[in-house]
Amino acid sequence: MTPRERFLAAANSQPVDRPPIWLMRQAGRYLPEYRELKTQHDFVTMVRTPELAAEVTLQPLKRFPLDAAIIFSDILVIPEALGQGYHFREQGGIGMDYLLDTKEKIESLDNSKITERLSYVADALSTTRSKLGDDTALLGFCGSPWTLACYMVEGGSSKDYMSIKQLAWEHPEQFEMLMQKLTDGIVEYLHMQIDAGADALQIFDSWGSLCPATHYEAWSLRWIHHIINELKARVPVILYAKGMGHKAADLIHTGASILSLDWTINMRRMRQKLGHGIAVQGNLDPITLSTSPEIVRKEAIRVLEDAGKQPGFIFNLGHGMVPSAKIECVEALMEVVTGRRNA
Amino acid sequence: MTPRERFLAAANSQPVDRPPIWLMRQAGRYLPEYRELKTQHDFVTMVRTPELAAEVTLQPLKRFPLDAAIIFSDILVIPEALGQGYHFREQGGIGMDYLLDTKEKIESLDNSKITERLSYVADALSTTRSKLGDDTALLGFCGSPWTLACYMVEGGSSKDYMSIKQLAWEHPEQFEMLMQKLTDGIVEYLHMQIDAGADALQIFDSWGSLCPATHYEAWSLRWIHHIINELKARVPVILYAKGMGHKAADLIHTGASILSLDWTINMRRMRQKLGHGIAVQGNLDPITLSTSPEIVRKEAIRVLEDAGKQPGFIFNLGHGMVPSAKIECVEALMEVVTGRRNA
Repeated sequence: MTPRERFLAAANSQPVDRPPIWLMRQAGRYLPEYRELKTQHDFVTMVRTPELAAEVTLQPLKRFPLDAAIIFSDILVIPEALGQGYHFREQGGIGMDYLLDTKEKIESLDNSKITERLSYVADALSTTRSKLGDDTALLGFCGSPWTLACYMVEGGSSKDYMSIKQLAWEHPEQFEMLMQKLTDGIVEYLHMQIDAGADALQIFDSWGSLCPATHYEAWSLRWIHHIINELKARVPVILYAKGMGHKAADLIHTGASILSLDWTINMRRMRQKLGHGIAVQGNLDPITLSTSPEIVRKEAIRVLEDAGKQPGFIFNLGHGMVPSAKIECVEALMEVVTGRRNA
Repeated sequence: MTPRERFLAAANSQPVDRPPIWLMRQAGRYLPEYRELKTQHDFVTMVRTPELAAEVTLQPLKRFPLDAAIIFSDILVIPEALGQGYHFREQGGIGMDYLLDTKEKIESLDNSKITERLSYVADALSTTRSKLGDDTALLGFCGSPWTLACYMVEGGSSKDYMSIKQLAWEHPEQFEMLMQKLTDGIVEYLHMQIDAGADALQIFDSWGSLCPATHYEAWSLRWIHHIINELKARVPVILYAKGMGHKAADLIHTGASILSLDWTINMRRMRQKLGHGIAVQGNLDPITLSTSPEIVRKEAIRVLEDAGKQPGFIFNLGHGMVPSAKIECVEALMEVVTGRRNA
């Protein structure tokens, strides 16, 4: 099987020769070649320049025998395309260029030019595909409407993202308007990514666990459901709902065909619970990659054993790679999963 | 029933006239009288001065018809009593006075003087009891060994608490030594709190969700199990394992008789799953208290309905109160649960 065939078979819960593997945030600061490029271009420039985005996307593929590339971008390109730009704060974390704190500001978000304003992502995908060849899977992604709204209404990274919850409770009509604009924009954006060559899409509901249990459906999942429905099953959709793996039945109801699980989830119990037809992705703790090759091997074998033989498993981390991840640890992981250390 | 009888009955899964209520971090910055006192004394001074700690503990009881007081203190008094002090960073968050980053530093932690060094907590409890009277429950608390170790090894608050996981994986013998010292110290500390008048104890496993599923038992729960076992059922123990409610079966195995659930857990499903004999506490989203009385009433009624009629329910929040909580929202909550707005 080619890596792309392997990835797509697993994503569709079909048999594979071995589990496919890719790693969330596999292109990033743990790679010396990324840090080198970063001395010349800032993050946002790299995201916006197709040649650079493609180069960064392919960096980990040149080192490791990964089955999929994921386009180098950021979930916040959607708020930006709606008119609310983002930047990185000097003290760390994300800042939005202004606070989305009035009805007027929500009304003025313009989702009529998504494809035009985000054409650089389509260009980055097609450039990547032309360099990657046809044998490796290429993934696109987006943030969930709820997760994007968290940043937009809070004005950036926050400790508790209180403002979005206040909006949802106190001004439900404004909240609905914001979510509808985001949802429509994301649908257009994801179709564009598929048109540009994405084999599958991952939706990051990174802040779903802020929702009280009784509101998770209304505040987050129903918008994801709508998005997936509008994609008309053109490609498999992976849903990563950090901290919400215990709501697997609700997550599946969105139409996602692959659940990406964080490290707190017992993979063996989850697979038994889900049964056949739903694939899972995960869930090695990313911090293992900051320990030693021996520990990585042991932990990776455990994940493989817990995932079992049932079709529909994609090896990944339980969250994104951290900058202190060690190359030799990633190599050890690759060897356990693929039998090869290097690309 | 007196508030104390009501609280203890619910904690023991016995019938009550109405659910008892207390609120995590009920003494704190949302209260004007707390902020006033804080202009005169810093946090650590208030914790260490029994008269002040008792005064702060009783502040919310003077306003609201709460069934229990919880002693004003901090989980980090244990590391301090072992020789590693704590402070609050100017930019927010907790800083430890030094980094626990060598075997020698772990060896030099001294847990032989817990009762002596933390006698101020015992004094605060008995002072509080004498002012509170016998009709209201008084709670003590501690951090779990794992959660305290997170702060100690990381040197304070952190984004990902990577160091403790590296220690647990790479230097298991040092990790064990640290956990054993913490566990023994906590057992002595909790016995002291019971001797000083605590009716029940809450263990905060605030960072349990950092543990990979397959290590949660070894890294956190088994130490909590040991602590609860050593308390010989002198008082009921509440376990708050934020983000780990989905591991209810494992949490119960520690011997805790009450599980405190965060807001992501569906209370109705959880009660059905747990059945009789295990009480639950929770799980109103604390952010509701920063909205409006109308929203609080609606959300509180929903929690009550989800908790149902089965004995063994203590009303609480799903996490600690935030400084922006509004007094009128707390009053509305009190009215829904107790039928009275004020003490």
